Amino acid sequence: MSKKKRDHRPEARLPKGMRDIEAPELRAVERMLGAIRKVYESYGFEPLDTPAFEYTDALGKFLPDQDRPNEGVFSFQDEDEQWLSLRYDLTAPLARYVAQNYDALPKPFRRYQTGPVWRNEKPGPGRFRQFTQFDADTVGTESVAADAEMCMLAADTLEALGLRDQYVVKINNRKVLDGVLDAVSVPIEKRSAVFRAIDKLDRLSLEGVKLLLGKGRKDDSGDFTPGAKLEVAQIELILKFLEHASLAYAEWKSNPVENVRSVKPVKGASSRGPIPTSNTEILAFMRSEFGQSEQARIGIDELEAIHKLTEAAGFGSHQILISPSVVRGLDYYTGPVFEAELTFEAEDDDGTSTRFGSVGGGGRYDGLVSRFKGQKIPATGFSVGVSRLYAALQALGKLDADVASGPAVVLVMDRERLADYNRMARRLREAGIRAEMYLGTSGMKAQMKYADKRGAPCVVIQGSDERERGEVTIKDLIEGERLSAEISDHQEWREGRPAQFSVKEEELVEAVRSVLARHGKTDG
Amino acid sequence: MSKKKRDHRPEARLPKGMRDIEAPELRAVERMLGAIRKVYESYGFEPLDTPAFEYTDALGKFLPDQDRPNEGVFSFQDEDEQWLSLRYDLTAPLARYVAQNYDALPKPFRRYQTGPVWRNEKPGPGRFRQFTQFDADTVGTESVAADAEMCMLAADTLEALGLRDQYVVKINNRKVLDGVLDAVSVPIEKRSAVFRAIDKLDRLSLEGVKLLLGKGRKDDSGDFTPGAKLEVAQIELILKFLEHASLAYAEWKSNPVENVRSVKPVKGASSRGPIPTSNTEILAFMRSEFGQSEQARIGIDELEAIHKLTEAAGFGSHQILISPSVVRGLDYYTGPVFEAELTFEAEDDDGTSTRFGSVGGGGRYDGLVSRFKGQKIPATGFSVGVSRLYAALQALGKLDADVASGPAVVLVMDRERLADYNRMARRLREAGIRAEMYLGTSGMKAQMKYADKRGAPCVVIQGSDERERGEVTIKDLIEGERLSAEISDHQEWREGRPAQFSVKEEELVEAVRSVLARHGKTDG
Repeated sequence: MSKKKRDHRPEARLPKGMRDIEAPELRAVERMLGAIRKVYESYGFEPLDTPAFEYTDALGKFLPDQDRPNEGVFSFQDEDEQWLSLRYDLTAPLARYVAQNYDALPKPFRRYQTGPVWRNEKPGPGRFRQFTQFDADTVGTESVAADAEMCMLAADTLEALGLRDQYVVKINNRKVLDGVLDAVSVPIEKRSAVFRAIDKLDRLSLEGVKLLLGKGRKDDSGDFTPGAKLEVAQIELILKFLEHASLAYAEWKSNPVENVRSVKPVKGASSRGPIPTSNTEILAFMRSEFGQSEQARIGIDELEAIHKLTEAAGFGSHQILISPSVVRGLDYYTGPVFEAELTFEAEDDDGTSTRFGSVGGGGRYDGLVSRFKGQKIPATGFSVGVSRLYAALQALGKLDADVASGPAVVLVMDRERLADYNRMARRLREAGIRAEMYLGTSGMKAQMKYADKRGAPCVVIQGSDERERGEVTIKDLIEGERLSAEISDHQEWREGRPAQFSVKEEELVEAVRSVLARHGKTDG
Repeated sequence: MSKKKRDHRPEARLPKGMRDIEAPELRAVERMLGAIRKVYESYGFEPLDTPAFEYTDALGKFLPDQDRPNEGVFSFQDEDEQWLSLRYDLTAPLARYVAQNYDALPKPFRRYQTGPVWRNEKPGPGRFRQFTQFDADTVGTESVAADAEMCMLAADTLEALGLRDQYVVKINNRKVLDGVLDAVSVPIEKRSAVFRAIDKLDRLSLEGVKLLLGKGRKDDSGDFTPGAKLEVAQIELILKFLEHASLAYAEWKSNPVENVRSVKPVKGASSRGPIPTSNTEILAFMRSEFGQSEQARIGIDELEAIHKLTEAAGFGSHQILISPSVVRGLDYYTGPVFEAELTFEAEDDDGTSTRFGSVGGGGRYDGLVSRFKGQKIPATGFSVGVSRLYAALQALGKLDADVASGPAVVLVMDRERLADYNRMARRLREAGIRAEMYLGTSGMKAQMKYADKRGAPCVVIQGSDERERGEVTIKDLIEGERLSAEISDHQEWREGRPAQFSVKEEELVEAVRSVLARHGKTDG
């Protein structure tokens, strides 16, 4: 019978591509989000929360991976047979919200939102089907000052997280890219495929992008992504542009801060002469190369305006840098695009180094709200990839400082006296100290093990001896662990009872506080 | 053409039963959750986050509304055709998590979790398909001290939110109810329907419960809920028990604090004599009425143990009260059940009064984790209904104190000088003041309107006159509004220019700070 029953038990397992987040990460992420929130608030952005799912038609399909038509969103039907989809980003719900509430909103409308989004995509290492985004958007203004503000916001956020000189906010303009594609006669309907291909430059290198601009590319798992099917001559010209642009950036990146205003020759022969590495030089280079296209010229003017605004606010080219190879994979961008990139590598425990690369991005999208409204409602935004940023800060040890420690644990020496132990825990809590009474039914040894596992700084003990004397014993587990590493003789250990002391029961709070203070904690 | 295009536009609308949450509520809820979190942390609970959806079989079906088989959860299939469901509470995912990670966890394991849950139920006023819960659970101990801790945690949370003398945590025990049902020979398989019916006592009164214990009940919308189909004699006995229990509570509630230790006669004739209104008296009453059932006796012993532990920790019967009519609608409870109820009413703007009633509840559930594991893993928990609690605190004005105000707005008087205005906003931010530059393209009047809509405490103005003098003008909008109510003469207003003053540009930060200080704000 028990065998049969066993077969009916469901298996306790996470859905594919999902994960649980436990206390240490959750606390660290919360601190990180708090720091970001503070910067966004200081800029006058207001928080907003929208539901996890929307009507599928209201959400639209603006995913970067349109190459894979079967993947994308999680969808289901409601009782009226209308289709609903879990949000795949925070921008599409914002567009719905703005369209629905347009008249009541202050214009321009600045909002920030953080929360999970869901993608029905192939999961992989570090690639989950639920992840958190942190977005800021400004809706209702065409002013390039709003785009400049996004770049400053991104830079200030990374500065607030302690990443000075370890990031760069790269900017470009879709209009410049359109100018380049005009020059090689790429038809409008092929451009979003071209943008998606170029966006993968960092991950796939020039060779991979070349395949995606042509017939298509098979990845390591054997999946085939169809290409933009450009002609060979068109592909060659786009690659030349990318090579130039990415070399310029690679050159700059090899020594970011010092090289910002210097000029270095391209590695590998190039007919183009020195590589520009400051915004002024890059702007001059772009004007001379693409300035003949009207569309590109408008885009370059906008980039120059962004550069001037951010420079006047004190940001240098080492913080906000015009980068012609940045495109962003999303279809809906219409003007300036941004990408926040970390410029350092970190070594794993096993010595392999990780590049963190992009930790956020965004751009101007002027069509997303007008989908609903008919009238044009311009917008610009920036989105932080929370888990990528967390991983980077973690690798740098920037989130360790203030990790909360476990609670003081009051041991249960006599089960008849639960009320007394409970009251001790309560007294500690009332004094602002994190504290718990042991709730299990095991003996002393298991209780000590439990306290260790909980990361308790100390345990509080009152057996019959202590009780008779009106005392409690405090055992400092942190100090105890340190000492046990020094004392090898078991007998000596037992007799010395280091790191433990008794006080009158009335002095419980002060005694625990002294242990916490010894380890640099003002409370539990 | 434009007509045809128009027809293809999606409508900007929220899915049925969903809502957006805007800045003022979001900020207030965040403060409330922070206060709850602080209490839970002080008790040694650790945060956990689980994904929004789970495999349907792992989640199980433990919804209160099993009366309506077509409603309940939102489900969809993944690429392997496995069914997934959005979580409908935070307990089922915890059971999955614990079963999956049992060996690695400290035991007992205390965790708290907050986040949205989704129910595919009929939406109504104040009844949404997505809402937030805040749960605390202790897994892996049978000790009734864990149940007592849940009650104290609930009471301490409501105290921390400023609700002293305005709440009561009611406790009962499923084992006592089982004893009552044993006495009237209700078969096991009918009991969950009986518990769900009794749980609706507050909402439907005795008459509604009577129908649900019998053949069933049609609600106002015409929907029919099938009943437990008990015999008339059984129904009568259960109702008698409920009447007695609820009268006792109603009596107590009419004057909660003063009456706790006094004894008052039942209103309406009763053969049972005086109504018990303190835990000691209720325990004595329960022993004399149901003590002949072994099962009920065990339950009463547990309630007594909870009472003794919480009383020793300083909680009175006006805070934690044994209440025989509390059952909780959920199927899976096996022992003590808790319900946190607000004991005040609040008046709406239109004079109708609202009872907030239950703002949270929970209980002991010993089968939820063992579904996966086979071995018995006892657990107990408490869940806060965040939006109900928020509404109550809002009605009491408990969340108003610290509402963040809008940012200082730097007006754009000359579009050629965006960089200068931008720098002013930046200087304010760097001084810790919330500030923004106006990003639109409209004129002075519209900008002032915008600043009003943003709740800006002041605007910063630098036109050509001010610029020549190296000055900025600060306009105090809060003071200005106050004065404009006093000054009726438009001419006088214009000439006096009250609530506005000019300072040297270098003194911008100090000047804005002085305006904020005038209105009791240390920063923006």
